[in-house]
Amino acid sequence: MRLTPYSRRVFYYETDKMGIVHHSNYLRWFEEARVDVIEQAGLPFETVEAQGLMSPVLSAECEYLLPFMFGETFTVKAYIPDFGRSRFAVIYEVYGEDGSLRVKGRTTHCFTDMQMRPVRIKTYPDIYDVYKQISDAGDLLYT
Amino acid sequence: MRLTPYSRRVFYYETDKMGIVHHSNYLRWFEEARVDVIEQAGLPFETVEAQGLMSPVLSAECEYLLPFMFGETFTVKAYIPDFGRSRFAVIYEVYGEDGSLRVKGRTTHCFTDMQMRPVRIKTYPDIYDVYKQISDAGDLLYT
Amino acid sequence: MRLTPYSRRVFYYETDKMGIVHHSNYLRWFEEARVDVIEQAGLPFETVEAQGLMSPVLSAECEYLLPFMFGETFTVKAYIPDFGRSRFAVIYEVYGEDGSLRVKGRTTHCFTDMQMRPVRIKTYPDIYDVYKQISDAGDLLYT
Amino acid sequence: MRLTPYSRRVFYYETDKMGIVHHSNYLRWFEEARVDVIEQAGLPFETVEAQGLMSPVLSAECEYLLPFMFGETFTVKAYIPDFGRSRFAVIYEVYGEDGSLRVKGRTTHCFTDMQMRPVRIKTYPDIYDVYKQISDAGDLLYT
Repeated sequence: MRLTPYSRRVFYYETDKMGIVHHSNYLRWFEEARVDVIEQAGLPFETVEAQGLMSPVLSAECEYLLPFMFGETFTVKAYIPDFGRSRFAVIYEVYGEDGSLRVKGRTTHCFTDMQMRPVRIKTYPDIYDVYKQISDAGDLLYT
Repeated sequence: MRLTPYSRRVFYYETDKMGIVHHSNYLRWFEEARVDVIEQAGLPFETVEAQGLMSPVLSAECEYLLPFMFGETFTVKAYIPDFGRSRFAVIYEVYGEDGSLRVKGRTTHCFTDMQMRPVRIKTYPDIYDVYKQISDAGDLLYT
Repeated sequence: MRLTPYSRRVFYYETDKMGIVHHSNYLRWFEEARVDVIEQAGLPFETVEAQGLMSPVLSAECEYLLPFMFGETFTVKAYIPDFGRSRFAVIYEVYGEDGSLRVKGRTTHCFTDMQMRPVRIKTYPDIYDVYKQISDAGDLLYT
Repeated sequence: MRLTPYSRRVFYYETDKMGIVHHSNYLRWFEEARVDVIEQAGLPFETVEAQGLMSPVLSAECEYLLPFMFGETFTVKAYIPDFGRSRFAVIYEVYGEDGSLRVKGRTTHCFTDMQMRPVRIKTYPDIYDVYKQISDAGDLLYT
């Protein structure tokens, strides 16, 4: 499995009075990248939702190394280093156009049904397969 | 009926790189004020929702007279100048601590059930009464 | 002058508990499209900023015809119907993938220096030219 | 030193299509609480800014234990467990009205001048004093 890193421009409204992207927005970029990776791997959100599966965030971490300015283009590499029975983790590396690593992050998630009850992902075989493939690809996901 | 205008501090993350509150946030302040007015008038959101009633926004207008800075306190006076069978309008005046009128706005809404089908508000008599009272109070709402 | 309409996916965090895009976000989409149009026409934001020019929003209007859901792709056609000495207006049409017109909007702006003092746009000839060309293209901008 | 925990209602636009507060917003609540604590302790933002001091976020962590719904009131207790020469950490506990601990967080910050160059906080004695007092109060800050 080989994917394209998620990328887009920084929006004006994402900046704050310090002139840089507000730190809360990176969690949103992580979400954008997470959705994109899973979709690129063959799972459009509609498919997941149609099966009544959700993956709420249990925890999030973010390390701010360098700021982003309005108008820059960022690129996110998202990986799934841990993938268990009903939980998984995603790590994120956000790069500037100059190749510099600007932000690092990690989120953990569980799989639940629409009533937020935990479910075992193996009972959703096609969804399981996609996460498994992303996870198995490891560092080679974007090469 | 006599209410207290909605008021709070400006948050840091509401500013943009121009150093002032981003213009999209005023629609959010309008929403905060709208919810607050209706609740002050005796209708907590839970009550409305329990009856399966929603009031989606049909249109919004905003006129930006003077900017707000981080740390300032704003005050919103919201009125209901038009209140019909299945639609209503809300107008907003946002003031700074110095009493200056900074932003003016107007939103229009319809009443719908949870499936977004229009409903006649008279069939929800207690909700009707609250909107009617706010509307009837006119300019005297905050005096 | 012929441009490509601005387009991207709807993000998860742009939805609200009604399950549709929160109405305040359309002002942000308008801004994204406005920046994109001006850049496509040959004016990267850095160029404008380097000349000390800003274009704050004076007013905004939005008409919500049909909602957007998470995962959909939207397309914005932005036009400049009015372009004066120190002011201009932009109108927006937001389309779904099915070609339906979902949201219409209009913003007005003035040109100012970094101290928010109004300036005549003709004193910035290269910037003036770009706005003039977009404005002159009228309805043919995306054909 | 004894402070009042920061508290406000959840806004409608803070929810997402899952019907709960979007996880990115908690970093914003942390910021609101952080600003409030420092102001309550005697340091309005204007004072800090007038001295040319900023405190950008270096890292953020968030653990989501239980969700918040629209209309609920949340309360944040923010503490400064670490306070060094040019860095500090803030921890956050977000409670529901029922007293349940819903979200836990931690941010780290450095002190910089307006050009984002690190500065020693001791060279700003009155600001140093306020942070020191909050930090020294420890668990007793809200008792």
